[in-house]
Amino acid sequence: MRWINFSLPGSGRQAYGTLDENDQVREIRGIPWAEHEFTGQRHGLSDVKIEVPVVPPTFYAAGLNYITHIREQEALAGRKVNVPPQADIGYRAVNALVAHEENVVIPEDATHIEYEGELVVVIGKKARNLSEAEAMQCVFGYTIGNDVSERVWQRADRTFWRAKNSDTFKPMGPWMETEFDLARAQTRVSVNGEVKSHFDTGDMLFNIPTFLSRMSRNLTLYPGDIVWMGTDGHSPKLDHGDTVEVDISGLGTLRNTFVRA
Amino acid sequence: MRWINFSLPGSGRQAYGTLDENDQVREIRGIPWAEHEFTGQRHGLSDVKIEVPVVPPTFYAAGLNYITHIREQEALAGRKVNVPPQADIGYRAVNALVAHEENVVIPEDATHIEYEGELVVVIGKKARNLSEAEAMQCVFGYTIGNDVSERVWQRADRTFWRAKNSDTFKPMGPWMETEFDLARAQTRVSVNGEVKSHFDTGDMLFNIPTFLSRMSRNLTLYPGDIVWMGTDGHSPKLDHGDTVEVDISGLGTLRNTFVRA
Repeated sequence: MRWINFSLPGSGRQAYGTLDENDQVREIRGIPWAEHEFTGQRHGLSDVKIEVPVVPPTFYAAGLNYITHIREQEALAGRKVNVPPQADIGYRAVNALVAHEENVVIPEDATHIEYEGELVVVIGKKARNLSEAEAMQCVFGYTIGNDVSERVWQRADRTFWRAKNSDTFKPMGPWMETEFDLARAQTRVSVNGEVKSHFDTGDMLFNIPTFLSRMSRNLTLYPGDIVWMGTDGHSPKLDHGDTVEVDISGLGTLRNTFVRA
Repeated sequence: MRWINFSLPGSGRQAYGTLDENDQVREIRGIPWAEHEFTGQRHGLSDVKIEVPVVPPTFYAAGLNYITHIREQEALAGRKVNVPPQADIGYRAVNALVAHEENVVIPEDATHIEYEGELVVVIGKKARNLSEAEAMQCVFGYTIGNDVSERVWQRADRTFWRAKNSDTFKPMGPWMETEFDLARAQTRVSVNGEVKSHFDTGDMLFNIPTFLSRMSRNLTLYPGDIVWMGTDGHSPKLDHGDTVEVDISGLGTLRNTFVRA
């Protein structure tokens, strides 16, 4: 099932709904992973504004989780980047989230912007101390993220605060899908209509159950938390006017245009 | 003015209120930094449970921001730790927050736990592109944090996910104070009643306006965001049964007991 977070232009009212094959949105009262009921209201997809699927309590990110991407980062840094020996999760910040079709704003002093197309896991249940076998029980569904990065700042700063968390640097969406076949999924990223990277979405160094199980040994996962699973391949340098589309089989396409501040 | 987030044992109802010198809580409807009104209900401080002052949209942390602490971390790491050349903010995670008087739970496999007593800045207004001169306008008030850390994990892991963000590792409170004289403030941390560290709270490498101004060049600060300003001095190794008190002049005392899982 496909779940969309939307607002109605004019009223500003925001709600969740299901989205069917005919682009019809069936509005609910409540939250998809908690108590909810259908309101009886329906909307055409083209009549609503798509919002960020969820603003999470905690925004987790795997970071380096595909081998080719690690080698690319190594070339970028001009020094050895170790393959992570264990699934140590990282963090991103909610200020940076923007929805499908919203612009990514390149800061005035930014010089080297790249995309990173990523699978996003949305947590649906409070969970602690999950085994790997149990881990997928806490997953509500999946969406798509673009972990936009400024590589000069990423190399120079002590943290990723502006390299990865500047406002608008975290497009996510367009919606959440509860059924997903990771084993057959491909991630394809295109710039202005031309495919620039594609990789097997499931070809991760540490898979989803490994991350969730390890995280849950020390921390409580909460409904609405999100985990970005990392990226593979290489992005060209992006600039004003570029439109980036991240497509993951079965999940849809996240599209955002980059504009200079 | 002193603001407290509290719940009423039995009912589970949670609200904000002001706290006066006679330990009387005057309950409000709403949020201190937004629209609110007094409900007319009053409670004795001893009749309420103190809750975490705020669960922030984003949980910022300065990290290394006092010289003596940097030298201590250097000794711990057994290698040179560079003094940060600029105010690059870091992050912590909300799952780890606990209130005044709640226990810090030491994970079974943790071996080296320390405290870090910190001043916490609470943001009260949405803000972007603040000059240093304007920066303090977005501050609502102050509280106290204890940035509990597991030093072996901090050294070994690729991120701080469990070293600093394990459940219960971020005590914060007991309340928020809107009037605060940073220039005269002292931070004193005691273990089981004995003072183990004390330092001038304002003796920071990068001060509050410097951090907020720099952050706001790339990101939007939101009401309820918190910024932990770092710590100085050295903590002894903590273990089961230890009670840690972080006292900052004019703000009060944050007290938590450490227990083994």
